[in-house]
Amino acid sequence: MNNEHANHSVVIVGYGGMGSYHAKLIKDNGRLKVTGTYDIDGQRAAASEKDGYPAYSSYEAVLRDPAVETILIATPNDVHKDLAVQAFAAGKHVICEKPVTMSVEDFKEMTAAAERADRVLMVHQNRRWDEDFLIIKQMYEQKTVGDLFRIESRVHGANGIPGDWRHLEAYGGGMLLDWGVHLLDQLVFMVDSKITSVTGRLSFILGDEVDDGFEAVLQFENGLSALVEVGTTNFIPLPRWYVKGTEGTGVIEDWSMTGRIVTRNREAEHVEPKPIQAGVGLTKTMAPPSESATLTGVLPEPFRQPSSFYDNYVSVLEGTAEPLVKNDQVLRVLNLIEAVFRSGRTGETVKDFDLY
Amino acid sequence: MNNEHANHSVVIVGYGGMGSYHAKLIKDNGRLKVTGTYDIDGQRAAASEKDGYPAYSSYEAVLRDPAVETILIATPNDVHKDLAVQAFAAGKHVICEKPVTMSVEDFKEMTAAAERADRVLMVHQNRRWDEDFLIIKQMYEQKTVGDLFRIESRVHGANGIPGDWRHLEAYGGGMLLDWGVHLLDQLVFMVDSKITSVTGRLSFILGDEVDDGFEAVLQFENGLSALVEVGTTNFIPLPRWYVKGTEGTGVIEDWSMTGRIVTRNREAEHVEPKPIQAGVGLTKTMAPPSESATLTGVLPEPFRQPSSFYDNYVSVLEGTAEPLVKNDQVLRVLNLIEAVFRSGRTGETVKDFDLY
Repeated sequence: MNNEHANHSVVIVGYGGMGSYHAKLIKDNGRLKVTGTYDIDGQRAAASEKDGYPAYSSYEAVLRDPAVETILIATPNDVHKDLAVQAFAAGKHVICEKPVTMSVEDFKEMTAAAERADRVLMVHQNRRWDEDFLIIKQMYEQKTVGDLFRIESRVHGANGIPGDWRHLEAYGGGMLLDWGVHLLDQLVFMVDSKITSVTGRLSFILGDEVDDGFEAVLQFENGLSALVEVGTTNFIPLPRWYVKGTEGTGVIEDWSMTGRIVTRNREAEHVEPKPIQAGVGLTKTMAPPSESATLTGVLPEPFRQPSSFYDNYVSVLEGTAEPLVKNDQVLRVLNLIEAVFRSGRTGETVKDFDLY
Repeated sequence: MNNEHANHSVVIVGYGGMGSYHAKLIKDNGRLKVTGTYDIDGQRAAASEKDGYPAYSSYEAVLRDPAVETILIATPNDVHKDLAVQAFAAGKHVICEKPVTMSVEDFKEMTAAAERADRVLMVHQNRRWDEDFLIIKQMYEQKTVGDLFRIESRVHGANGIPGDWRHLEAYGGGMLLDWGVHLLDQLVFMVDSKITSVTGRLSFILGDEVDDGFEAVLQFENGLSALVEVGTTNFIPLPRWYVKGTEGTGVIEDWSMTGRIVTRNREAEHVEPKPIQAGVGLTKTMAPPSESATLTGVLPEPFRQPSSFYDNYVSVLEGTAEPLVKNDQVLRVLNLIEAVFRSGRTGETVKDFDLY
């Protein structure tokens, strides 16, 4: 945490919301140092200077500067690829915001350029470090509620699509590319199994040219099924995570980590449930289990990742660690996103596509 | 409510949980009267006698008795059709439990027999009278939260499949035929639009030969999509109803009618949401709307059905009303169920099937 030892210089390209957020986070990290920024918007360049980061006058100037080791790309999505390819050609390493590109094809071009130049490319899939996700990962691996056979991962807002270019297809807008890439990345990172089918639905209720939300049902070869859903017209949110295991159910309501697990009480003698009045009918099936039949518990402690995104990145640069976000995983997620788009557009379930 | 005027006699065939529940409900109704029962199980016949309902010694004895006007069938599902066809041939009217038959083909045979004999057949789709459903129907028709474009109807329990024959395929067991027929019937009754596609998933996690739950995503021609889900391994239930409209969202948690609606506040000036910390990242999209931007309200009063199931049935018998549960609607739901089974078994979305 000592900036005097920060010997890896980073220039942030695109000093908007995410770019300036990176600057703040890197300041807290001791091994990287933001030495400047570049933004085509003069107001953002001025904001950068005010924040203490010199603004380069052109991207070429960044590329020509031999003091720059890493370029962090936080622009709209449509220019990630070109900026990265130029960076590699100039001998720079690259951290790139998500979604790294808008297609599998573009990403392949990008990774090929990185390999030719023998430079590092690491995509900022930062939500692999989210505590809520790491709790679910823990539950998945430790079988806290038995073997998980169903994972529902939802992010619900009611603000529509905020911002500017995020409304536009040409810039890679829309919720599947924005939030979808995080939620799908988390799943693919957690579940080591081939995806045998995906059924997607895209929402266009707000009249944008891009999706204002989506849902995707994934079937994994190991039997697990997952629902991933993003909504921007949900005035009441459903829980962030809802998971079912052979021994119980877990829920995480929101980012405050409110939640609980309810499991079968193996110690209790089985008591046949009594029918309850439900609406105008009776139901035994849907009666709550008898009081002694279940146990309510707290969420487990989250897994801890061994290092932060930035620490891991520096270790990769220094040759002492493998990247936690691997480019073949990123490729797999982009390919999955293309399958969700294809399914959403055709109304058909897509199979035999996974790059597992 | 005066049993002395109850001049329409009913004999209940199958005096189990549902059969005896019918007897209780009919007792509260003044126009029908249970004059006897028939059950192949001697213990149930004894229970009937104890409850004050003479037990016939055979189904033939019921059919031969000219005092019997209506036969109410509350047996396992596999024998509904044969019992009904025999009843019509003997000149009786029939009330039949749901699912009326296990296939479209069987139901067509049943309705043909009713028509030939000019007798009434009415299926006990009693959950059209459920208050929770009637609130949603009200919201759909009155646009309480704007035009509904998404309806999610879930019933979650944690008892597995209770009972005996409900575990077995030969008797028409499984959750799609048991609870599914109610939830799909409610939707089809409410939404006057063709179903253009359905994607189904069946759950077999409990190791039964029949589904222990299912989900079905229905796309209607009018733009509405619906999710219908039944689960018997859900130790924490998701809300019974979750509906999204162009102006807000509504939720009904459970049969106690706990719930609320949250709508856009048209009076408030638009305030761009502020980014919030969510996990390790920031999000503006998923930030809660500003406090003045939404209004929280109570659920509307439910629609009132003009009469109860039994009242309506008697009026149909007397020729003074149309049936509230129409056989072409029942046929449509059975056909939809077959499409959900087909989709679940093949893993494909099914189109061009609806009998709308």
